[in-house]
Amino acid sequence: MGVTAARGFRASGVTAGIKASGTPDLALVVNDGPGYAAAGVFTSNRIKAAPVVWSEQVLKGGRLAAVVLNSGGANACTGHEGFQDTHATAERVGAALDVSAAEVAVCSTGLIGVRLPMDILLPGVEQAAKALAADGGEAAAIAIKTTDTVHKTAQVTSPAGWTVGGMAKGAGMLAPGLATMLVVVTTDAAAGAAQLDAALRGATRTTFDRVDSDGCMSTNDTVLLLASGASAVTPDGAEFAEAVRAVCADLARQLIGDAEGASKDIRIEVTGAATEDEAVDVARTIARNNLLKCAIHGEDPNWGRVLAAIGTTSAAFEPDALDVAINGVWVCRGGSVGDDRDLVDMSGREVVVTADLHAGDAAATVWTNDLTADYVHENSAYST
Amino acid sequence: MGVTAARGFRASGVTAGIKASGTPDLALVVNDGPGYAAAGVFTSNRIKAAPVVWSEQVLKGGRLAAVVLNSGGANACTGHEGFQDTHATAERVGAALDVSAAEVAVCSTGLIGVRLPMDILLPGVEQAAKALAADGGEAAAIAIKTTDTVHKTAQVTSPAGWTVGGMAKGAGMLAPGLATMLVVVTTDAAAGAAQLDAALRGATRTTFDRVDSDGCMSTNDTVLLLASGASAVTPDGAEFAEAVRAVCADLARQLIGDAEGASKDIRIEVTGAATEDEAVDVARTIARNNLLKCAIHGEDPNWGRVLAAIGTTSAAFEPDALDVAINGVWVCRGGSVGDDRDLVDMSGREVVVTADLHAGDAAATVWTNDLTADYVHENSAYST
Repeated sequence: MGVTAARGFRASGVTAGIKASGTPDLALVVNDGPGYAAAGVFTSNRIKAAPVVWSEQVLKGGRLAAVVLNSGGANACTGHEGFQDTHATAERVGAALDVSAAEVAVCSTGLIGVRLPMDILLPGVEQAAKALAADGGEAAAIAIKTTDTVHKTAQVTSPAGWTVGGMAKGAGMLAPGLATMLVVVTTDAAAGAAQLDAALRGATRTTFDRVDSDGCMSTNDTVLLLASGASAVTPDGAEFAEAVRAVCADLARQLIGDAEGASKDIRIEVTGAATEDEAVDVARTIARNNLLKCAIHGEDPNWGRVLAAIGTTSAAFEPDALDVAINGVWVCRGGSVGDDRDLVDMSGREVVVTADLHAGDAAATVWTNDLTADYVHENSAYST
Repeated sequence: MGVTAARGFRASGVTAGIKASGTPDLALVVNDGPGYAAAGVFTSNRIKAAPVVWSEQVLKGGRLAAVVLNSGGANACTGHEGFQDTHATAERVGAALDVSAAEVAVCSTGLIGVRLPMDILLPGVEQAAKALAADGGEAAAIAIKTTDTVHKTAQVTSPAGWTVGGMAKGAGMLAPGLATMLVVVTTDAAAGAAQLDAALRGATRTTFDRVDSDGCMSTNDTVLLLASGASAVTPDGAEFAEAVRAVCADLARQLIGDAEGASKDIRIEVTGAATEDEAVDVARTIARNNLLKCAIHGEDPNWGRVLAAIGTTSAAFEPDALDVAINGVWVCRGGSVGDDRDLVDMSGREVVVTADLHAGDAAATVWTNDLTADYVHENSAYST
């Protein structure tokens, strides 16, 4: 399951006591080799949490022996002391597993601006090391949840004999430059660090980077890919990249499906753009329009709000050439009233908004959620 | 009151029947001269409503005899027919007042993508022309309301003998490049079109352009300034510009105070920026962060969300030099935990978030609102 679907990995998830709720809050993923190549992608937020700064540094070596992840605290905006806490965590993992701390990535998620309770966390590391198991992937996925209502895992197995599997957490502060989330993907394919890096960057660019639940970018986003080489099979490059992409896409879709307070998963498809960058920009601008997100929550095919959003971008298009469909009904044609809006059925959880710019051949898809009273409720009461 | 505070103007507000609610929905403002100089500022949205396209063209002449405004329909995304509707409205006003349609500005507000009921609107113009009165400013301000709970007027009188007065509507889709709104400002000062244009652009740049209730830019934003010259006093340039700014600032503050579903008015002050543009960019980015807006709704001084927002900008700053205060308590110092968050009192309607970037001497203020379940409710049920 998840990070232990591929051979050569053990994992665990335990209740260290970091969270007041008493639910599992510490996960460990260990690569037993024989290979240790790894790659990582991190938040593009300039305010980076201590574990992100640490793990970025560790990944420069292209090797990971283990990943330790905690929920219950983001260890962001915690100054020099916060960085020392991350370092101490990696050291404790290294000691427990007899590996170098310089090959241990650290991930944290939770409230910003609060120090982690190290007197609780460090004993938790010992506990997690003792609980490591070849079928521990599910326990690990459970231990990294914050406001997630379900844990998220995915996997793909190649007929060639290797597997890619992963786990993710994230339910709020989901926006590009990686949705707010922690993701660990493992594989038993025999792949080097450069191949992993290329596959991971290619995959995140069109999956996690195109999930934008609430426009808010986190300080802690981390996606890691570890290869044990335990299958002893060197994968075909394209097939491997596609498997990593598929696992990332599956996990990204699960993140949207479990976003805080959401009642709709919205697929924004922009076609006919002059360039892919412009397609992404337009799709993201639509995805961030609060008025449209409210309208979709109310199952109101208010295409005027789609046009008002598109009009704020600098993408190439002519206003009187824009077509917009909601769930397949072209309610706006040529920038004006199109087919009967009463034909639109928005009763399902998934809603598709399609905008054709008629300015070229490029296209992109961004996923978002509706804006609901439950979102407001969850996020107005989070830290108190 | 409002647009009739200055001499030389008459106004009216009537119930034409455009709105199903049966509340006033058509306003007329007439300049009786002797001067007719005017200026206008319009939405920067590339999707412009028909009345915006019309009025921009009219204002090129620098003269206005009258302004007709309707609520109950935005006449946006209504194609060539929608533009003909606007033209016909201006013609009917021209005929009723014996002025050229080419000196009649038209403003519309309401749902996008729906044609106006011209069979109701045009007789309404006749009715409004008959109701014109020297004290009609309040009736006009009432007739342009959509989801506004109160009508908005402001005025400033100079010891030199001239007055600037205005009215505004707008309660949702409030964002820069003008908050979604219609604003008419009048003056009896003897000012030419160039002076009006300079004063109006200077005023909107730091008032309406820095109101960002929900990040959503409208297709219909219009701010007009008309001068009758009826005081026969040529104003001091700086004093006049300040009076126009003060009226715009007063109206902008009223818009924020009446924003859809809001329970807090949030003043985002960014100081220590390298440039004013960067200060505005950082302030606007903070103002658009849904998670922070939810936190403030919950009276939670969650400064981590302020830092996470700042970190997504490209403004000059060092992460470990950022200070953030909420209602005067510096809860974040040096990018990390500052003073005790329990000292922050957020019980009032107005909340001040101050971010000092320590990167220069520039500053800017942007106003926004909290994000509430009522906002979601109003905007998920708007067009249905």
